[in-house]
Formats: sequence, structure tokens, C-alpha cells
Amino acid sequence: MVLRWGEYNLVQYFVLLNLLKLQMTQNSLISFFQPNGIAVIGASSHPEKLGYGVACNLIQSGYVGAIHLVNPKGGKVFEHEMLTSIVEIPDPVDLAILVIPATYAPETMRACGERGIKATILVSGGFRETGEEGAALEEETLKIAQEYKIRMIGPNCIGLLDTHFPLDTTFLQPPMPRPGEIAFISHSGAICAALIDWSKKEGFSFSRLISLGNQADVSETDILPLIAEDLHTKVITLYLENISDGRRFIEEARKIIPKKPIVALKVGRSESGQRAAASHTGALAGAESAFDVAFEKAGVFRADSTEEMFDWARALAWSPLPQGKRVAILTNAGGPGVIAADALEHNTLELANFGPQTLNVLNEFLPSAASVNNPVDMLASATAAHYAESLRALLADPNTDAALVLIPAPPMYPAENAVDAMIPVIQASRKPTLVVLMGSEQIAEASARLQAAKIPDYRFPERAASALARLVQRAEFLREMNESPAPLADADLIDIRVALASAKSGSWLDVELVERLMNIYGIPTSPIKLAPDAESAAKLGEELGFPIVMKIASPDIPHKSDVGGILLNVVSAEEAAQGFEMLMARVQAKNLRAKLDGVLIQKMIPEGQEVIVGAVRDPQFGALMMFGSGGIEVEGLKDVAFALAPLSSREAEKMLSKTWAGKKLDGYRNIPAVDRAAVVDTLCRLSQLVYDLPEIAEIEINPLTVLKNDVVAVDVRVKMS
Amino acid sequence: MVLRWGEYNLVQYFVLLNLLKLQMTQNSLISFFQPNGIAVIGASSHPEKLGYGVACNLIQSGYVGAIHLVNPKGGKVFEHEMLTSIVEIPDPVDLAILVIPATYAPETMRACGERGIKATILVSGGFRETGEEGAALEEETLKIAQEYKIRMIGPNCIGLLDTHFPLDTTFLQPPMPRPGEIAFISHSGAICAALIDWSKKEGFSFSRLISLGNQADVSETDILPLIAEDLHTKVITLYLENISDGRRFIEEARKIIPKKPIVALKVGRSESGQRAAASHTGALAGAESAFDVAFEKAGVFRADSTEEMFDWARALAWSPLPQGKRVAILTNAGGPGVIAADALEHNTLELANFGPQTLNVLNEFLPSAASVNNPVDMLASATAAHYAESLRALLADPNTDAALVLIPAPPMYPAENAVDAMIPVIQASRKPTLVVLMGSEQIAEASARLQAAKIPDYRFPERAASALARLVQRAEFLREMNESPAPLADADLIDIRVALASAKSGSWLDVELVERLMNIYGIPTSPIKLAPDAESAAKLGEELGFPIVMKIASPDIPHKSDVGGILLNVVSAEEAAQGFEMLMARVQAKNLRAKLDGVLIQKMIPEGQEVIVGAVRDPQFGALMMFGSGGIEVEGLKDVAFALAPLSSREAEKMLSKTWAGKKLDGYRNIPAVDRAAVVDTLCRLSQLVYDLPEIAEIEINPLTVLKNDVVAVDVRVKMS
Repeated sequence: MVLRWGEYNLVQYFVLLNLLKLQMTQNSLISFFQPNGIAVIGASSHPEKLGYGVACNLIQSGYVGAIHLVNPKGGKVFEHEMLTSIVEIPDPVDLAILVIPATYAPETMRACGERGIKATILVSGGFRETGEEGAALEEETLKIAQEYKIRMIGPNCIGLLDTHFPLDTTFLQPPMPRPGEIAFISHSGAICAALIDWSKKEGFSFSRLISLGNQADVSETDILPLIAEDLHTKVITLYLENISDGRRFIEEARKIIPKKPIVALKVGRSESGQRAAASHTGALAGAESAFDVAFEKAGVFRADSTEEMFDWARALAWSPLPQGKRVAILTNAGGPGVIAADALEHNTLELANFGPQTLNVLNEFLPSAASVNNPVDMLASATAAHYAESLRALLADPNTDAALVLIPAPPMYPAENAVDAMIPVIQASRKPTLVVLMGSEQIAEASARLQAAKIPDYRFPERAASALARLVQRAEFLREMNESPAPLADADLIDIRVALASAKSGSWLDVELVERLMNIYGIPTSPIKLAPDAESAAKLGEELGFPIVMKIASPDIPHKSDVGGILLNVVSAEEAAQGFEMLMARVQAKNLRAKLDGVLIQKMIPEGQEVIVGAVRDPQFGALMMFGSGGIEVEGLKDVAFALAPLSSREAEKMLSKTWAGKKLDGYRNIPAVDRAAVVDTLCRLSQLVYDLPEIAEIEINPLTVLKNDVVAVDVRVKMS
Repeated sequence: MVLRWGEYNLVQYFVLLNLLKLQMTQNSLISFFQPNGIAVIGASSHPEKLGYGVACNLIQSGYVGAIHLVNPKGGKVFEHEMLTSIVEIPDPVDLAILVIPATYAPETMRACGERGIKATILVSGGFRETGEEGAALEEETLKIAQEYKIRMIGPNCIGLLDTHFPLDTTFLQPPMPRPGEIAFISHSGAICAALIDWSKKEGFSFSRLISLGNQADVSETDILPLIAEDLHTKVITLYLENISDGRRFIEEARKIIPKKPIVALKVGRSESGQRAAASHTGALAGAESAFDVAFEKAGVFRADSTEEMFDWARALAWSPLPQGKRVAILTNAGGPGVIAADALEHNTLELANFGPQTLNVLNEFLPSAASVNNPVDMLASATAAHYAESLRALLADPNTDAALVLIPAPPMYPAENAVDAMIPVIQASRKPTLVVLMGSEQIAEASARLQAAKIPDYRFPERAASALARLVQRAEFLREMNESPAPLADADLIDIRVALASAKSGSWLDVELVERLMNIYGIPTSPIKLAPDAESAAKLGEELGFPIVMKIASPDIPHKSDVGGILLNVVSAEEAAQGFEMLMARVQAKNLRAKLDGVLIQKMIPEGQEVIVGAVRDPQFGALMMFGSGGIEVEGLKDVAFALAPLSSREAEKMLSKTWAGKKLDGYRNIPAVDRAAVVDTLCRLSQLVYDLPEIAEIEINPLTVLKNDVVAVDVRVKMS
């Protein structure tokens, strides 16, 4: 086989390459994006075959390493003579792309292993996606790969490309996209193909792009750090149909977010939806999307549509982050200004209030009929110089954090004149400016010039405002993310774990153990005692002090009030004894076949505000915390908020502010204010508890009674995993 | 002045035109869109002047009537010799376009009047939008127009165009858009210009387009019926910054909706937001958008963005309406199918479940690895024939109401092949099919062919699903809209009006009048009596029967529980007398300077579910009805729904189903079911009351206690306008 350039000419290049590799994290996947030598197994000289497309793209991509094409029948692609077997492949060869019938996959993988290849992309389909037979074939191929310590992308994928290295292992229609700053990781190959075509007219491009197919080996979480390390990648975008290991994904994402933003489009039904619901928390978390709170925790932006994902990604890749959310709008017409102002409000951004100096500057050169207050409407007569000078003044104002410039094609001159005048102003500022060019043909040239200057432009104010909001949100997230979960006194984990070990899986924890758990984590409870008979009910009441509350004790009755199993305000030993008999009689009358342990006795708590605090374990992301309005209507009212454990006090505060139950803690009309800080503290402590103890599946405090200077966990239920 | 074609050659044309006019509604605005002769006052031969642009566009638009250009200095545009004054304009002349300095507007309007011109478009700016001086000029011009019975569009607008008639009175960059089916009415001229340019690449076009400017005379509501009458217009779109007369707009829209859909983008802060809030209903309706409920009542679709408005309009213009909401998805790749399924669910559409015959047909020609269940994934190997035959089978299935076809550019052949094969299938079906062509350059030709065939196409599944949902919603609305408000017994309006006439404007109605009002409209109350002193309190208690409730009577204390002004469960005459003194003492202790009339006595109502029912008069749309969770937390919980009065029982039912308070009426856990039908009835009756009696500004029943077989309006407050 003859290469067009001798390998020895490349010595300097590979020395550099290996130095680079050493600087990077020791990542076993590095060969996928920076391979020293690539083999295409199943290359073809027939233009209608995928094996031809892959070979062509690789050759034409500008990849400067060794390219080895393999086909048992020999032949030629361009000037590349094909080898007839894998054993013939000379060094160097880091990566093999397999474009072969599925049935040959196991033996081909073994041949790669024998040849010492450590990274493979199995492009071919015909595996798990086609049914049981294909799944078995995939399993077999993966086993062989693991035996030889080969990492495998796919099968059923279109491979990857790097527009800077450069490298293209796909069979997509050439040319490869031009070098860009946005990386894209995808669970769908078809989406990759469509996006590359779409991106050309949208004015952005990709740094790296990877289609993961069936993810038999390499998953989105595996590849994420590798993409993040890429110097040319400014933003990472993800199309996700599922996440293999939610907790690990979130941890990897949290490491990356401080350096590079991540935007994800998550589609498909979440598995969490099918979780069995034993508590209110469980029932409500099932309907809620665990992905939302997980992404919020990590700082991953969750887009609602593909267009939104790339609207955001362009702004995140190209614009500086704003210090705040006060936005100046600059326009030459009223209508677009109104739309933009609405869109800012919809995205919780604010209209900047300009200082007197800015107003003076604007008044100097704008016509008297112009509006110099935000939105600044320069009127249809606005020149290119008006655009540039007004923008300069707005960005210089200390009351402005960002600017949104609206250009409906000016009637008297080409839109690109205005853009040319503004580009240096935008580039000289540390504040972000997003531009809205309204129209199509009349603004095409202006749009191209902005894109060349890496200034994000949009066709409509609504989409620009949404992107600007992400810049603000990212700046806020970076400021807040270093806050760690609230410090807790060291919990005596060993002791409690021994105790928990004896509890049956899936069972409800008994009262004494729940009490101990709460004590260890510093969550105040009201002592609760089990009375096995009427006599001890009376005695316990006297010990705790009247008035007391009496509740039926049964592991089989989760919602006690539903069966009349609660008595309030029991004031004497005599009443306590009678109450015991009454409760037993009530429950027995219902024929519930429930195990009855007796009656629980608790001191009556003073009136306060009642809230619910709970946690449930999501199979993908671990413990989800819930806070909201309690009582029997909790599931109906849905006045609840979720977040991922463990919580910082700021995160707990955010949960409170999302619900009416949380807002009300500060008082409302004649409802007095109560101890909000104690609720935040309880949320943090409970989140630490479930984070520490995976043995616990669900935990719910309903109600947590919030008093003036305290909280009391009145009813706590804990279910084992 | 010489026309290129003699007027006499046009006799036949104008006979036809006048016949058409007679068939139409007698609309004084008809001359704007079908003028017999047009004058451009202020036409110019200088290409940089607006007066040149208007003259050119009019001449080049293909308008076949007489064109008269007027400029005091004379001159020529193309072959049109200019007249030097308005008096010289020969017949026929129905419409004048004024492109003149603002200060000349009054005298020019008068000259038009003297010449007998009845329709004018005042294009020029320099009026109300520039300040007080301009506003005075506008006022003066309008007065002169009214004096001569001239209708005026503008000032400060870009005029109008009709692509079919054809006619173009604007100064926008030519050529005029090609003939289309979507009409656009706009409060912003800049938006019109941008949209015309944008529409060219989006593949739709306009039938009529009108920019209304300052609306000194003609408003969006005036022009709406005229646009609706146009035979070429299939859908009406609106860009609104405000509505001059909300109630009239809704009435006009309701007349049009059965024939043509209306989509509106409403921007800008609603005036209703500034309404003073005397009741919970008022406070909550202020935050809520009255536009939402008004549009819902009329069946106007409210879009959130310009793109959404035209995404919907294209589908509404071109597609048949579906019978239901069961959608078949057809794709050649999994990823887009997942996105589409998500998007359908997000838009409350459903995935169709195919019958066995459909599955058999698909299995016949699709490969075994294909998924024949919805979404149907034909795999990447799908041919154009596969697309067409699969779609035929899906549309033939009685379980399918609509289809969504996804085409990520097929790897092996051009996308237009698939489109060509499908077009006859789509056109032959009575069910709508929307197509998603993913990409840009690779699908451009396919997109053009679909548009030529009037089949809506989109770049992404999310946008197609949103448009499809509007088709479903319109079909539902048309089925339901004929239901009239619930019939009521004839209310004795004269009697009550005489009584109301004596009530002070802005005051709260006294208890006896409220009681009478409720009786007349058949809303059950609990008799309520005023005790001026302790003795009569005791006596009234005995009359009504104990236990009773006692409430402080004062027009100055709207929220009685806030001041401790309520006593519950008063069981004897002695307690009633003591209660009277206690209430008076409590209120006096607070130093509220409130007028105290005594204490209101009411029989204690049995326990039931408590809801709030209210109405408040919106300045734009009239009475807004509210229903939701009552009690003191009503404003905090915001579990309320709004709708526009008068209500049909279906509309009242919808309000119930939007709130937890409404859902709970059917029972929840150990909360027993109550009389839901009586709540619907009360809502309808109250809506009739406020619709009949504009004298009433606000009315609120809080609580309306809902019992097992009845409701009781326990506390009713009525405020006069």
C-alpha cells in the first residue's frame, strides 16, 4: 500500500501529537478523535456503498495520518490501494472503522484485537435495533472487544468528525462542515445528518460531532469529557434519548460546566415515570421530570427544541457573559421594539434604565421625535452611524448589562451597512450584544458578516431574547455553583446502618428507628410512642402530657386519615383508653386485613403552618427532594417543587420560592410568619440523610409543622429500598 | 393625463367589479381594496422619495384602474404625467394615497373632500407618534375627514396591498409578494416589510396585507370583516399592539371564525393589568391576561411568536381539518420519530393505534427490521415508493385522523423523489398530512415542490406538531361553538335596575339588594340579616335557628376575617348578644375609621367544599368570570380559571376542569363528591347577571359552599361600576 506522503515525513507531526496526548487527561478514548493511523475495514470502490463513502470522506477530510483501506477483494479508492486482510495493516493504526455486514462483526472485531487495534467504530446496522438475533450478535461482538480491551463506538451509528484536526469517519454527503465551535453528541444518526445540512444556512458550524448508535460500549457520558477537552469546542450540545447512568452524567457535567456550557435536548419518555409510588413524594415525582431537576443541579441547559438548542449554543459560543440582566433594546421601528420588550419580560430579563449621560448623548444626534428611553427607537430614518453610535452609548452605560439590536431591513440603505458600523463597537465591549435581522433576502449579507465576526444573529426578537436569557442564567449559575451543601454535624452512620440492615427490603421502618434516624440528622420530631393496649395508651398520655394525638399503628395503612385512624386533642387518661378501643374498632370494622400493632401516642403540636418535605430515589439520578403544600390534598394541589440531593441552602431556598407553601412561610394576610430558616435547614438535613443512606427508598415528613421559632416533623414515614 | 389603456376599454371590468361589490356586505371601506381609480397625492419623480416608491409600486403592481399622480411641481413617473392639483383629478377616483409633509395634511384632506374622494391612506409620519404637536395635527386632519365623510387609514403607515386584485399602495421594495392565501393586518409597518421579505424563503405568501399606523380612523376591527370577505384569503393573521374596542373585536371575530381561522400575535402590556383590584377576582384577573380568555371565547388562536403565527397559518390555509387527534408518524429514522412523538404529546395530540389491516399492509413491503407500530420507522433504506405506500396505508386507517411525515434527507436519493411520490397520496386524502423536511440545502427542492402543491412543510417536528394541534383545535372549536349560553328564567331586569340606580357609583351594594339580585338570578343564598344592636342579634338568631354565624357589617371592611370580624357556631340567644358586643369592641379597638352598621346574622351552613366564583369587568372585553379555590389563600394559591361572560355550560365545565377546586368536586380520597352540576349552573347564572347588568363592576361569591345536592352562596359582595 502506498500513501501519498511517506510516513517518515510525518515524524514531527506525531511527536507533537503525542505531546498533546500526554497533556490531556489519560483518557482511553483519545484515539477516537486523535488517532495515529486509521483503517477502514470494509472500504469499497463502489460509489453506492457506505464503505466507499467512509473511505472517501476520510481521504477528503484532510486527515494527515496513515489511512489503510481493507477489502478482501482488493481494489482502489482514489490512489489508495486496498489491503485484502486486517493482518496486513502496517503501523501506525490506532483506530478502525468497521463497515461490514453484522454477521461478520464478531470475527472482524477479533481480527482487530489480534492486530492490536484499540479503538473501533462499528458503523454497520443489524444489531440490537433489529431484534433478539441482532442483540445477541451485538453482545458477542462487545464481549470480544472487551476481551481485547478494545473500545467500541456503535454499532448502528454514523461515526464522528472533527473539523479542526481534521477527521471525518462518516459516510455523510461531503464536504465536511467548515470548522466551528459547537460540539454535538447524538443518540441519533439521522439528526446528525439533518443538522449538518441545516447548520450551513443557520450560520454556525461544528467542532466535533459524534453519533453514538446503540452505545454497546461507549456512552454519551464516556465521551463527554473528551469533547470538553477539545480546545476548539466552546459549547457542547447533546441530543439524548436516555442516559445510561444519570448520576455519573451529572457528575461529569458539573466538572465541565465551569469551563464550557452544555445544552441538551432530551426526548423520549423518562423511565422515572414508571416508578411505583408509595408516598405523595413518589406519586408526584413520577409525573415530574427527574431530568429537569438533574440538569438544573448540573447547570445543563435543557432546550425544548432543536432550534432552541442551537439558538442558545451560538450565543454561548460567541458572546461574553453579562454581569446582570438589564438589557438595552435598540431599534429603528416601534413594533419590533414592543415584541422585543415582551420577549425580554417573558424570559425574566429586565429593560435597562439609562443614566442621564446616555440620554444626553442619544439626544445629541438622534432626531427629536426619536425615543431615547428603552427601547431606543431611532425611527426609520436611522443611519448606519446612528446604529453604531447609539449602541456605543448604550453599552457604555453602567446600567446596561447587555444589548439587543433590532434591524428590520432599513428602507434607504442595505442592512449590512448598519452591521459593518456596529461590528467594531460590539467587539470592543465586554458586554454581549445580540442582533435581530428581520427578513430574509434583504438581510442575508448582513447576517453573513455578523456570523463571520462571531456575533450571534437571529431572525426574530423572541429567539434572541431566549438566547440572551441563557447567557444571564449561565453567569448566575457560575456565581452560585461553588456553594456546597450546608455543613451538618457528623452523623453516626455506622450505628444507624447496622440498625437499618435488619429492616426488610421494601418495608416501612418502625417508629423507634425513624425517631433515631431523625435524631441523628438533627430533625426535630415530636416523641412518638407505641401503645399496645388501652392501659398503656392512658399511661403514655400521662408521660407525654395532655393533650395528645392518637393514631392507628399499622405497616399496612399508609394513609391513616382515610380510614378514620386518627384522634386529635385527647385530653385525659380516661379519654386515651377509650380512644384506643375506638380506633381498633374502626379499623377492624373496615376489614382491611391490616396488621394492627396498636396505637401511636404523640403530644399535640401547637397550630402552625403545615408543609410536606420528602425524598424519593430516582433510578437514574438518585435522591430527588420534594417540598410543598402538605395535607391530604398535596397530590391534587401540586404546589410542590423538586431538586436533586444533596441540597445547598440556596437550592433549598429556591425550592421554597417556587411554591405557595414556601412563600406563605413569610406570612400572608392574617396568617402569621413562621420559621422559614428552620424549613431550609430541615430540607438540607433530610437531603444529606438520603444522600448518605441509599438503603432508604422513600422518606416523607407530612406534615412538617412550622412554628414561630421551630419546626416539628409530626409524621415521618421511611420506606426501605 | 394619459393612461396606457383608455378607460372605456375597462367598462366590462368595472361592471363586474360593481356586481361583486353589491354581493359583498355594504362596507364603507370597500374602496380601500377595490378602488375604481386611485390618486397618489405627493407622487414624486425622485427615486429617493417615498412618493416615488408609492407611485412606482402602484403602477407596477398591475392595478388595472385609473392611476392619477399629483404633484404641484408636475413631472412624470414612467409614462404617467403628473397633475399639479387635486381639483384636476378626473373621474373615476375612489381612493387617494397621501404622501405629504404632516403640516399639509389638513388642507390636503379638505381638498380630497372637496374633490369627492371618500377613502384615503395617509402614509406620512409626523403625527401622534411624535408628540403633542403631531397629535393636534392628527386630530385636525381626522376632523376634516369626518366632516367630508372620508374614511382614513393611517397616518404613519405603509398602506396596503392585494396580491390578487392586484393593488400595491406601499413604498416597500418591489416586487410585490406573489399571490397567496394569508391576509395580514398589522399595527406595525416595519413588521410588514420584514415579513414580506421573510415569507419568500418560508414558502408562503399573502393575499392582502395592511398596515394601520396610528389608527386615527380605521382600526383593526373595522378592517377585519373586509379582509374576511376576500375570496382569496384562507386565513387571517394579526399583529396587535392593542385593541380599540375589545368586545366589538371579539364579536366580529366570532362571526368570521366559522368561515376563516384567525391567528393573532398580541404584544405589549395589557391595560387590564392596571385595573384597580377591590376583590380577589379583580386582583387575580389583573395579573391574568384578559386577551387570553377573550381570544379563547372567539376562537382566535393566540401565537407566542411571529414564526408560530405563520407556522399555524400555513397549515390552516392549506390543510383539511382532522376528525380527531390521533396522529400517525411516518419516518425513516428513529431519532426524529422520538422527537415527533414527544412533540405530539406536548401539544396534547395522540399517537394513533393502527388496525390489523394497516399493520398487514405495512409488513408486506417494509423490511422485517422496520417498526410498523406508531411511529412507523421504515429505516434508512426506505424508498420513495415506501414513503408513498406507507402513507397511503396510514391515511386509509380509520384509527388515524392525521399524519406527520418525517424526511431527514434520505442518504441514497434526493428528498424530492419521496415528496413527488407522496403529493398525490396527500392530495387524495381528506385527512391532513404535514411534512417535516429536516435539513436545508438537501431538502430545498423537496420543500419547494410541497409548497407548490400547497402542502405545509416544516424543518423540525416540534413546529409541525404545534401547527397540527391548531387544526385539531379548530375542528373542536367549530363543533362546539354553536352551543349557546345556558337558558335562564327571564330575570325581572327593570325592577332590579331601578333598585340599582339608587346605589352609589363605586360603592358596595347593601345586603338586602344583594339578596334580591341573587334571588332574581336563581342563585341560592343563606338568608342574611342585619342586627343593629345586641338585642336584635339575639332575636334574629332565634328566627333563623341556631347555630348561626355573625359577621361585622361595614362597607369599609372588605376582608372581615382579617380584623377578627367573624364569629362561627354561635349556639344561643345569649351567646348572640355577647357576640355582638365582642365584634363591635374588636373592630373599634383597631381604630379602622370604618363605618359600622351592626352585625350580619346568618344560619351556619353544613360543611361542604368551598369555592370562589366571581366576575370583574375588563375595560376592553367586558365581564371576565373567575372560578377556583376560595378561602383566604385564594390569591396566593392561584388555583383559579377565567373565561369571558356569558358562559355556556360547556365553557363553565372547562373552567372547572382547569382547576384543582373544580376537579375535587367529584371527590378525592376521603373528601366526598359534591354537586358539580350546581356549580356549573351558578357560574352560568352569575355570568348572565354581569352580562345583563353593566352597572355592576365586580361581584364575588366567596365562599360558594358546595353541598351534596346543592350550593349556597354564603358571602356575596357586589361592587357598583
